[in-house]
Amino acid sequence: MSDILKSSRRAFLRGSVAAAAGAVTAGAARAATPDPLITEVQDWASGLGQGVDEVPYGLPIEFESDVIRRNVEWLTADTISSINFTPIHALDGTITPQGCAFERHHSGAIELKKEDYRLMINGLVDRPLVFTYADLERFPRENHVYFCECAANTGMEWAGAQLNGAQFTHGMIHNMEYTGVPLRSLLNEAGLSGETAGKWVYVEGADASSNGRSIPLEKALDDVLVAFKANGEALRKEHGYPVRLVVPGWEGNMWIKWLRRIEVLDQPVESREETSKYTDTLADGTSRKWTWVMDAKSVITSPSPQMPITHGPGPLVVTGMAWTGHGRITRVDVSRDGGKSWETARLSQEGGNKALVRFYLDTDWDGGEMLLQARAMDETGYVQPTKSQLRDVRGENSIYHNNCIQTWHVKSNGVAENVEVS
Amino acid sequence: MSDILKSSRRAFLRGSVAAAAGAVTAGAARAATPDPLITEVQDWASGLGQGVDEVPYGLPIEFESDVIRRNVEWLTADTISSINFTPIHALDGTITPQGCAFERHHSGAIELKKEDYRLMINGLVDRPLVFTYADLERFPRENHVYFCECAANTGMEWAGAQLNGAQFTHGMIHNMEYTGVPLRSLLNEAGLSGETAGKWVYVEGADASSNGRSIPLEKALDDVLVAFKANGEALRKEHGYPVRLVVPGWEGNMWIKWLRRIEVLDQPVESREETSKYTDTLADGTSRKWTWVMDAKSVITSPSPQMPITHGPGPLVVTGMAWTGHGRITRVDVSRDGGKSWETARLSQEGGNKALVRFYLDTDWDGGEMLLQARAMDETGYVQPTKSQLRDVRGENSIYHNNCIQTWHVKSNGVAENVEVS
Repeated sequence: MSDILKSSRRAFLRGSVAAAAGAVTAGAARAATPDPLITEVQDWASGLGQGVDEVPYGLPIEFESDVIRRNVEWLTADTISSINFTPIHALDGTITPQGCAFERHHSGAIELKKEDYRLMINGLVDRPLVFTYADLERFPRENHVYFCECAANTGMEWAGAQLNGAQFTHGMIHNMEYTGVPLRSLLNEAGLSGETAGKWVYVEGADASSNGRSIPLEKALDDVLVAFKANGEALRKEHGYPVRLVVPGWEGNMWIKWLRRIEVLDQPVESREETSKYTDTLADGTSRKWTWVMDAKSVITSPSPQMPITHGPGPLVVTGMAWTGHGRITRVDVSRDGGKSWETARLSQEGGNKALVRFYLDTDWDGGEMLLQARAMDETGYVQPTKSQLRDVRGENSIYHNNCIQTWHVKSNGVAENVEVS
Repeated sequence: MSDILKSSRRAFLRGSVAAAAGAVTAGAARAATPDPLITEVQDWASGLGQGVDEVPYGLPIEFESDVIRRNVEWLTADTISSINFTPIHALDGTITPQGCAFERHHSGAIELKKEDYRLMINGLVDRPLVFTYADLERFPRENHVYFCECAANTGMEWAGAQLNGAQFTHGMIHNMEYTGVPLRSLLNEAGLSGETAGKWVYVEGADASSNGRSIPLEKALDDVLVAFKANGEALRKEHGYPVRLVVPGWEGNMWIKWLRRIEVLDQPVESREETSKYTDTLADGTSRKWTWVMDAKSVITSPSPQMPITHGPGPLVVTGMAWTGHGRITRVDVSRDGGKSWETARLSQEGGNKALVRFYLDTDWDGGEMLLQARAMDETGYVQPTKSQLRDVRGENSIYHNNCIQTWHVKSNGVAENVEVS
């Protein structure tokens, strides 16, 4: 790039959208030097680039090498039964690419070939069945975009372990377009005689942990998918290749990867994953269980601790994402003063059913400090609570289901920090 | 996997969905061997898998290594000014992952850092402007899913060079969720005085080819985006990192990658890319020009030459995708007899504006030969034409804008071939 364009005259940002772009008049450029577009050819325009045979399957460009999943070393005893975080701070739109979508494994991500894959349906069915992968492909299939959030997302905030970045506070989430067969179709194939009310399915994976969970049959017959593609292509190894369960709006632990068995029962199993884990311990030591649905939640992804404001006062795009397991997000508000006053953000598209929605507040920054918050509302009328409202009800012992309002303290130098607002 | 499940008794598919899954009764399994699920532990369930720190950015599993972009060696003189093809035969749903989305370069894919990026708007504007990448991030942005189809997609079919695979006949297309700033916002920032009618913008890229194209100002002010993300993350190098133009519904050649300049003019430039190339030569040797909009089109992706039927008669899912540059797809029909009779397919979701839609025909295969075709209709009432209808109007000299109905000849052994039906 020529010096004249590099230094350019685009510097002064005067606090209006009109000034967001710097003006270079043709006259000014010519006064400084012969037209740089003619006399100086940039490196990238002076030769040939990469051919179409070089990268059969592409990765992000090297300049984006920091936009990756990250884990937190001290969070778990090892990295096999652990979690990493989607780089939501650096993403926009709504779709999460599989390559950087968070992983949660209980005994590591396994390799299971399509040819070896089997799915058994047994228990209270007319005839137990075993499906091959090829069998599944012969059933009518559907496509839906859904978010998948780990119940422990934002869990470290409960007791004030406030990590400095949206990736770490809210990155146990992804949002993908799934292709799969409704579980209802497979259960009906096996045959469900008699009453469905009060019955359950127990679902488990083929990995060593098996990660079994009980799901009411009513949900299993509603919108649960036996999925084999995400964002158009095969599930990645770490997302359950070749087949995972998709349980829309419900906690990610129930979205069984490497799905191998579905048993129909007349009661829940009360497995480790729904007693010792994935229950919510209250202040008095008792626990809430069967807390499956992910309540409405939102987070501002930029500005945020990993995405400081790098310019002076003037036009600023505040953006983030919102979601609810109860259906559709209808409104997101943004506060710049820690919740004292609110402005309604723009949703970039109508909220999808149990899918992420992106919101923007196109605003003007005066260069002063801000206590940035977002507050989501969904179609049930539910409003995302503050941290103190949630603590009043739940205490501080919980690990799961923290959907409280998050606060970023943005300083006048543009740096943002994770803070608590009482 | 145990022998009893591997060989299993699921073999007989009797031509009904009810038989698509084979039954293994608990009794039968026990008669053959002690319960294999207890006595034999599969490899993948007997140890630990991959940890969450091992793959910060993931690629598809090794078993899917054939689902990649492919180029055709004889198609172009070199691979720098060439094209490759999306593996649409193996995809489902609607989103195309960036990693396998087709590439078309005129002088190769270049590397251009965000910090070096500049976008100039000049010509008939009140004040010429140069935007940095950071400037662009301060304008209100939008998210939309759009298809991008190369005008030459299906071009080899015109004169009967019938490649055997949907990837090669129809794979110059992808469909992604773009995040960007409306070009309208940037043009208004530069200031458009007086009449806009009759004016044009000339858009060019930063690569050596520059690939300049003229676009009517009316379109530029309508739905064109200056985009920096696709499917949530930064554009890949091969898709124009850091900034490309998105020209919804219009031929891919106008979606300028590495966008560097937009000039407002009172007439089109008549550049190489819109005179010598990207015009449609008719039978009499004259050429149609300004053929920007991609007409309604569809293709069956499975079964297809790369996706033979691997099972016997019975339940069969026929699937494919449809799109139109004129807005929304309203209906897709499928024929099994080369267009003599048609059945209306199921659209997996409402057709989006200038976006791919997935269709399914959930049917029963009698094991006989089929001449499979799909026929798309859009909201304007337009019906995708047959090859002979299109040839009657356009002759056989064209390279671009072949949107005719495609035929796959599926044989009784399940193998499919690209054939011409008169």
